[in-house]
Amino acid sequence: MPSLDICFSPELLPLYDLRGKVAVVVDILRATSSIVTALAAGVTHIVPFSELEACRAMAAQGYLTAAERDGQQAEGFDLGNSPFGYLDGVLPVRGRGVAITTTNGTRALHLSLAADAVVVGAFLNLAAVAQFVRQQGKDAVVVCAGWKGMFNLEDTLFGGALAQRLEAEFDTTSSDATLAARHLWQQAQPDLSTYLLQSAHVRRLNNLEANKDFEYCVQLDTHDLLPIWREGRLIANA
Amino acid sequence: MPSLDICFSPELLPLYDLRGKVAVVVDILRATSSIVTALAAGVTHIVPFSELEACRAMAAQGYLTAAERDGQQAEGFDLGNSPFGYLDGVLPVRGRGVAITTTNGTRALHLSLAADAVVVGAFLNLAAVAQFVRQQGKDAVVVCAGWKGMFNLEDTLFGGALAQRLEAEFDTTSSDATLAARHLWQQAQPDLSTYLLQSAHVRRLNNLEANKDFEYCVQLDTHDLLPIWREGRLIANA
Repeated sequence: MPSLDICFSPELLPLYDLRGKVAVVVDILRATSSIVTALAAGVTHIVPFSELEACRAMAAQGYLTAAERDGQQAEGFDLGNSPFGYLDGVLPVRGRGVAITTTNGTRALHLSLAADAVVVGAFLNLAAVAQFVRQQGKDAVVVCAGWKGMFNLEDTLFGGALAQRLEAEFDTTSSDATLAARHLWQQAQPDLSTYLLQSAHVRRLNNLEANKDFEYCVQLDTHDLLPIWREGRLIANA
Repeated sequence: MPSLDICFSPELLPLYDLRGKVAVVVDILRATSSIVTALAAGVTHIVPFSELEACRAMAAQGYLTAAERDGQQAEGFDLGNSPFGYLDGVLPVRGRGVAITTTNGTRALHLSLAADAVVVGAFLNLAAVAQFVRQQGKDAVVVCAGWKGMFNLEDTLFGGALAQRLEAEFDTTSSDATLAARHLWQQAQPDLSTYLLQSAHVRRLNNLEANKDFEYCVQLDTHDLLPIWREGRLIANA
């Protein structure tokens, strides 16, 4: 039986051997929720960057540019890290490529590329992620982006939710991290939004922008779409 | 109000600034439980080593030597990592110093020395730890030894238990790690032993020695004793 493990921080990734495995990169607030939303809104592909400058330079190649630092949209970019940037119609996004850089999410993604397959997870596309991992049938690791390297609750809860969906076909008890995430998910599931609002970190992010990002990002199974890594970019899996 | 934070792995310690804070080092199974037990049994002081050779060499200076690697007593040492080594009367320990090296615990200890005060925590001396942290009245960080750098359940639950004891006087909600540990402790508390035996890692350790180490280490508040770091060694706090 393949196993599902959870890595709580990119800083711990060197302890995990991703070779031959599926990596599910998650940054619920808000990078991976926004990536799912962007591809669903007709963005053709997304190229992640670690550095602001390299990301901004992609504008010259016709890309939309999206950048977030410490929860705020960075200056000189078309978009921030809000999923509503792809939904509000202010900027036409259909048919465009997007170059993106965020505090935590793009780092987690770059560090996960040793895996056989790298996909992007959010509550929005939880069912699609579970289906893909089940179909692959190999060991999987949820890579939590965390917050500047630290453990965070929302990414962990995604790991617990995925473990619950896969528990019949995957070993979800051999890793203490997966066990803990499942237990936390059991507590949170009846009211995910209220549970997460206990977190000072979540409340801080929530206050940064006067919009509905948080309530949007904690919805389950709204998007039947799986962003997958192919040749240096994220595209919607066929 | 001072804060209580929890660091789930020594690998994450570079993200925490321990200066001016109290560090509570915890390795429930079994290093810190054994250290509490040893000092209670009359061991005068304990010197931790990272390397087997340096630890073994202390025999020449009259020290008892204790070493564990991957859960087993290392060859050529007086003691392993079992608290019963200090209790079974086979080896007289009263009045002796002990040189110790373990897979996870001594590493966590060495990495914590930037803190203002470094103490050793276990379920056995939870009340003594809580009292000390309360008296110090400054920010505190629980440093979980983990298992080879990875998250483990038993050290995390100690952090949750300490947070519960201190929640009236300390901020235990600003850190997602502390929040998660408190929630897990709430689930585990009614039957800590059964809860921990879900963990494959705990069961593996539990099977390594045909003794009662596990049941011993999950007892609460049995020892009113606080190991504290003073001039390169752990002694019982006066």
